[in-house]
Amino acid sequence: MKELGYYNGKIGELSEMTVPMNDRACWFGDGVYEAGMCRNGIMFAPDEHVDRLFHSAEMLEIRVPVTKQELKELLYELIGKMDTGDLLVYYQVTRGSGPRGHAFPEGPANLWVTLRPKTLNPDIAPVSLITDADTRFFHCNIKTLNLIPSVMANEKAKRAGCYECVLYRPGGRVTECSHSNVHIIRDGVFITAPTDELILPGIARAHLIAACGRLGIPVRETPYTVEELKNADEIITSSSTAPCVRACRVDGKDAGMRRGDLFEALHREIVQEYCRETQKAE
Amino acid sequence: MKELGYYNGKIGELSEMTVPMNDRACWFGDGVYEAGMCRNGIMFAPDEHVDRLFHSAEMLEIRVPVTKQELKELLYELIGKMDTGDLLVYYQVTRGSGPRGHAFPEGPANLWVTLRPKTLNPDIAPVSLITDADTRFFHCNIKTLNLIPSVMANEKAKRAGCYECVLYRPGGRVTECSHSNVHIIRDGVFITAPTDELILPGIARAHLIAACGRLGIPVRETPYTVEELKNADEIITSSSTAPCVRACRVDGKDAGMRRGDLFEALHREIVQEYCRETQKAE
Repeated sequence: MKELGYYNGKIGELSEMTVPMNDRACWFGDGVYEAGMCRNGIMFAPDEHVDRLFHSAEMLEIRVPVTKQELKELLYELIGKMDTGDLLVYYQVTRGSGPRGHAFPEGPANLWVTLRPKTLNPDIAPVSLITDADTRFFHCNIKTLNLIPSVMANEKAKRAGCYECVLYRPGGRVTECSHSNVHIIRDGVFITAPTDELILPGIARAHLIAACGRLGIPVRETPYTVEELKNADEIITSSSTAPCVRACRVDGKDAGMRRGDLFEALHREIVQEYCRETQKAE
Repeated sequence: MKELGYYNGKIGELSEMTVPMNDRACWFGDGVYEAGMCRNGIMFAPDEHVDRLFHSAEMLEIRVPVTKQELKELLYELIGKMDTGDLLVYYQVTRGSGPRGHAFPEGPANLWVTLRPKTLNPDIAPVSLITDADTRFFHCNIKTLNLIPSVMANEKAKRAGCYECVLYRPGGRVTECSHSNVHIIRDGVFITAPTDELILPGIARAHLIAACGRLGIPVRETPYTVEELKNADEIITSSSTAPCVRACRVDGKDAGMRRGDLFEALHREIVQEYCRETQKAE
């Protein structure tokens, strides 16, 4: 198949798939999701993604209708139906179905999967960023379907010809971007916002921190401001589909790009890990 | 029909209706909605609801695919198909369809309608409330489908055996409830939170303020705290389906219930207006 959609056991071409109007995704965005890369038919970091999905679900009291093992087996079964093994593997769990009403429904949660061709592009040229106020809710640690502010921030970046929009809370504290985490390097130290309710604990972020450890780059998980971002030696965004991207401009002014040695070492480490973990068996 | 679902021209029994998996409601909760009452086949305050829908859509740059007039005509056409004219009229517009991606899609927005039997119960006994921190985003003036925090707050109230959950921001400022506005009466004055980005500008709220005007009750639109709520002479919640409800307990302690004269005058005024506006033609 080219693009696959799965819903509670039903499988079809994504563009042809339908779901019940009464799924709570439709009325409340009432669900949680994950998205990860797959290369050569091998998912990258599947345990970390599946664990995070279950954790997101647990925080909202959504009962995932399968076990972690069953979910991974299902994903691999679906990947086996695809024309290519280089894919974006997206899955979500929504809080069941029923006539619209805020109260939790009695029936089981719904499981959705989509698979679409995608390759990780390791060589993204340095990107431009904008900044904007972070007006999101205080549950950004949960990977939910309540994404309108992220949609709006992303569109704003796109219209400015930029790759991402860096969000900051009152006082100027940087949280993350519309769909990436963001980190800085200053005086040789990798600085990244702590994992509180203001940011998603990114899996690419965790891998960057681990890579810093292997490379002997000190890491500080601490709040930093837009001002500090603009004056940093390097600015790096990370997401599962683009795990180590360098920024060269912020709000129309040159920024970062002063520690190419550290950025390149980190980038190489991340790409090598990705390739090693998704290597085709001999 | 018993319960109707409508999606971009397709009509069916709500429980049988499906929508494309690629509608952006499914991935981002990327849409806005309205819900209003209908009695005797006559919608209450349809212009106010339709105006607010268009305003919500405009703030998110969603282009409603019909005019206001066309939407009202469509709603009445659908109401005409129902077994009863006493209905909850729910409609939403989502930002089009397409493979998941934050960037706005090129195609048109999608129009959804549901109709379900409902009668306004004018005689709700005094209710109990709980309070909880308001952790929602800063776009609560827009009636969006990003409703997870409201779902969680409502469930918390339900489990406590309460009617609603009153939300407050840091510092104790009351905003609104999980799906109602909330107001207090103190020293004969009707006090309600101002319509900023922290609350929905409720249509029932506007009608309560107008009713105060007709009754000579002074109105102050000003922030007030949980402490002030708990010590108020009366506590009133309002929503389109329950426009004037009196509270007698907050967080397990007796509250309000000291100005029955004012509550009853307001309640009578609101119910009379509702009945007058939805009176069957002779």
